[in-house]
Amino acid sequence: MPDTIVFSGSSHGTWKVLRQTALAGAPLASVARVEKGARGLADAAWTLSGVTSNLRYTNAAEKHVLDAMPSVLGRPAATRAVLIPITKSAAWWTLAQDERRAVLEEQSQHIAIGREYLTAVSRQLVHCRDQPGAAFDFLTWFEFAPAAEPRFDELLARLRASPEWRFVEREVDIRLEKGV
Amino acid sequence: MPDTIVFSGSSHGTWKVLRQTALAGAPLASVARVEKGARGLADAAWTLSGVTSNLRYTNAAEKHVLDAMPSVLGRPAATRAVLIPITKSAAWWTLAQDERRAVLEEQSQHIAIGREYLTAVSRQLVHCRDQPGAAFDFLTWFEFAPAAEPRFDELLARLRASPEWRFVEREVDIRLEKGV
Repeated sequence: MPDTIVFSGSSHGTWKVLRQTALAGAPLASVARVEKGARGLADAAWTLSGVTSNLRYTNAAEKHVLDAMPSVLGRPAATRAVLIPITKSAAWWTLAQDERRAVLEEQSQHIAIGREYLTAVSRQLVHCRDQPGAAFDFLTWFEFAPAAEPRFDELLARLRASPEWRFVEREVDIRLEKGV
Repeated sequence: MPDTIVFSGSSHGTWKVLRQTALAGAPLASVARVEKGARGLADAAWTLSGVTSNLRYTNAAEKHVLDAMPSVLGRPAATRAVLIPITKSAAWWTLAQDERRAVLEEQSQHIAIGREYLTAVSRQLVHCRDQPGAAFDFLTWFEFAPAAEPRFDELLARLRASPEWRFVEREVDIRLEKGV
């Protein structure tokens, strides 16, 4: 059963917004804090919700490697987080399954590149394209210790330079700090 | 953008229920009629909703063939319809993408078998596993002329005998007739 994950942007919540950057398409309304949970906050300026779901591209050999190094969320040292909502183009979604897989992995090494950073960067992929009225296709979430931010930025730079990113038409990068 | 499709079971609606058969798992509450639309009926005994979505397994060569013979819904001669909600097991959803594809097509010929019946049977696949609280993973919908029902039953028999169906844990078959 997929789990529902809701991000709420408002004046309160666990994560303080350090900065928001719209890399492609419209930004989100500026907020001071973001909460992540199973339900949205009633007074939020915006909520983004989706579900964890089954793997869409990962093959058995790749899954075997990833299962041996599961992403752990909520580690005490991971006081920094990043929420990156992403929308891909209609051209992406009308490709056949093998064509999307070829762009994502054989051409862009998305799975292989991500794996290099798993010990430093915990992550969670939330799907929302199939939620009626959703503004984004995915809500990607990352947690790491402050010292790992340069490594995280390297990961992003490699993915954003890949052929897969030619299909990204909206991308907002929200940097967060826990508590404070 | 995915389209929302809602099936409502109640005392009224376009489609008269001829019979309901629960092949695996619990049946749905018995109703006299079913409506299919973008919204549910307010007084329905049950509503099942989901979205049309991107292809999950079809490769480019298969898509090329299917694009040349698109399924047309609402043909005047197609006065019979069948709604088959389906839920697959946790074992299915934890398989890697290539493992699910191998069961669905290389072992079960789901796409190839379906293609043989496309001139007689129009179809629509509605995804609902990623809808919070959904009771089914898919709502499959078929329309055909009364004389095509034996061909449709042959299609179902072939798919239900395939290795893919070992992963089906709930399946309800609702036969419908338009108007009357």
